[in-house]
Amino acid sequence: MIKFGIDIGGTTVKIGMLDDNNNIIDKASVKTLKDEVMTLYLIREQIDIMLDKYDILSGEIMGIGIGSPGAVDDENGVIDIFPNAGWKGVKIANFFRSCYNVPVKVSNDANVATLAEMVMGSGKDLNSFIYVTLGTGVGGGIVIDKKLFRGNKNKGAEIGHMIIKMGGKKCNCGRNGCFEAYASAPALIDLAKDNLNNKKSLILELADNKIENIDGKIIFDAYKKGDEVAIRTVDEYVVWLSEGLMNLMNIFRPDGIVLGGGISLAGNVLIDKVKKYCEERFYGYPNTPSVIIRSATFFNDAGILGAGLLIK
Amino acid sequence: MIKFGIDIGGTTVKIGMLDDNNNIIDKASVKTLKDEVMTLYLIREQIDIMLDKYDILSGEIMGIGIGSPGAVDDENGVIDIFPNAGWKGVKIANFFRSCYNVPVKVSNDANVATLAEMVMGSGKDLNSFIYVTLGTGVGGGIVIDKKLFRGNKNKGAEIGHMIIKMGGKKCNCGRNGCFEAYASAPALIDLAKDNLNNKKSLILELADNKIENIDGKIIFDAYKKGDEVAIRTVDEYVVWLSEGLMNLMNIFRPDGIVLGGGISLAGNVLIDKVKKYCEERFYGYPNTPSVIIRSATFFNDAGILGAGLLIK
Repeated sequence: MIKFGIDIGGTTVKIGMLDDNNNIIDKASVKTLKDEVMTLYLIREQIDIMLDKYDILSGEIMGIGIGSPGAVDDENGVIDIFPNAGWKGVKIANFFRSCYNVPVKVSNDANVATLAEMVMGSGKDLNSFIYVTLGTGVGGGIVIDKKLFRGNKNKGAEIGHMIIKMGGKKCNCGRNGCFEAYASAPALIDLAKDNLNNKKSLILELADNKIENIDGKIIFDAYKKGDEVAIRTVDEYVVWLSEGLMNLMNIFRPDGIVLGGGISLAGNVLIDKVKKYCEERFYGYPNTPSVIIRSATFFNDAGILGAGLLIK
Repeated sequence: MIKFGIDIGGTTVKIGMLDDNNNIIDKASVKTLKDEVMTLYLIREQIDIMLDKYDILSGEIMGIGIGSPGAVDDENGVIDIFPNAGWKGVKIANFFRSCYNVPVKVSNDANVATLAEMVMGSGKDLNSFIYVTLGTGVGGGIVIDKKLFRGNKNKGAEIGHMIIKMGGKKCNCGRNGCFEAYASAPALIDLAKDNLNNKKSLILELADNKIENIDGKIIFDAYKKGDEVAIRTVDEYVVWLSEGLMNLMNIFRPDGIVLGGGISLAGNVLIDKVKKYCEERFYGYPNTPSVIIRSATFFNDAGILGAGLLIK
């Protein structure tokens, strides 16, 4: 038996074929188009190609799991709203169910990635942990007693939309000063731009002297080479990130925090600095247990794996 | 069969005798002394007086439940540290167990009060809620799926120590800008003092013109009478409080939030303003369920009842 894990993203949709032990057998991808119907047909085409290639009948499909950004109605398998692609009310579960006559499950992309880390990744040995994605936004998943906690109607775990600076930077959600506005990749890049301020820096060199080319990787590469602007930028970023994480520690006192998303690719450089900051400051009465901080295991495949894990 | 609920506070210890349906039969109180051993003996004395008065044998005691501020080791029944009274490592469960040879359970005061609201009070009909106490500090309890969530080693739910303003007011916990530093009773009083700034105000009149007499009740009394300084103070306080609550809504998306503690005695005046603020602003995708906001049911008796509920 096989299953499919579909990871819908802002620019591409990744489609994975997995065996019943959640090993990825094959992968494909299609563009995320504004036209949601067209996108669904393109996904179906890729599934059909894989089924053909491996000579699999639709009766051998255990099911299809789907992770989507935006607001997802898990119960009815509908993508209520996916702002970046302009999708609204996409009945995606119905679509694939009618194509293949198999179970289809849909969930939020952050929940799905958390599931991958919980079952097969960095959270495998943790009873409770918070998965924090540091990417275009700051999302997350909360695991309590080895179970995903999602709040009323699956609308909780919006950890990126916790204000850490009242009256601070405008957030996409409408509030000011959210964790996301300070700990996302664009926030890191903004910090670098502020710190550059016409100074000479390796950051600019690595970005071919085009300020719009600066990304998280460039900032951390420059940091590793001792660039002053990059050091200042990363130091500042670590303060914002760590203070937000300490909030989550005080609220949940989890066994661990797992950092994922593009910025987490900086790896130990980032993890070690965050650990040090939190260890020196984290609120706690005597006997308060410390919190493990580590990188996520999966990066590109987290969505496919987690979506596949929706199907049991 | 009867049981005792003991509610340890910063200035007094309340002792309640309850029947097995958690009705309070009798109450007493003793002072919280710096001398913890003396305090324990005073509590025992009151228990003995009640046992005598109702002609109850120690064999008819189901158990003794205790709620304590500070850091409590639930498992071993020890008050690790209770800073306001200067207590450290008080083996309170052992003490009462050896006195009466009955089960003794100890837990954090916020958890105990949450238990009272969950089982018998404002949280009775809610599957998930967050109990927020607005008093000398800001504490709380988190109920998920009708169960108290307490984090690793019961050290979670420190919702007062979530930073909402980076670099803001110094908090007792050592960090700056915690929710507690803006939503506690002292924070409300500080706001009033700042707004007074030599202005004429009913607040001062009600405080007998002594600034040190100002408390939460006076501020809300002046507010209800249309005093300008009080209106400004309450309006500002509601912003801080509501923004912190909205963080908790986004993280937990609970069915409800229950406000307790001294400030919650302001009742609907406060609740209505917080509701309005949150309804107008709260982060949410389509279909995000709204969050019920209400006052706690118990005030003075929450600790006794909740402590009694530790004994089943």
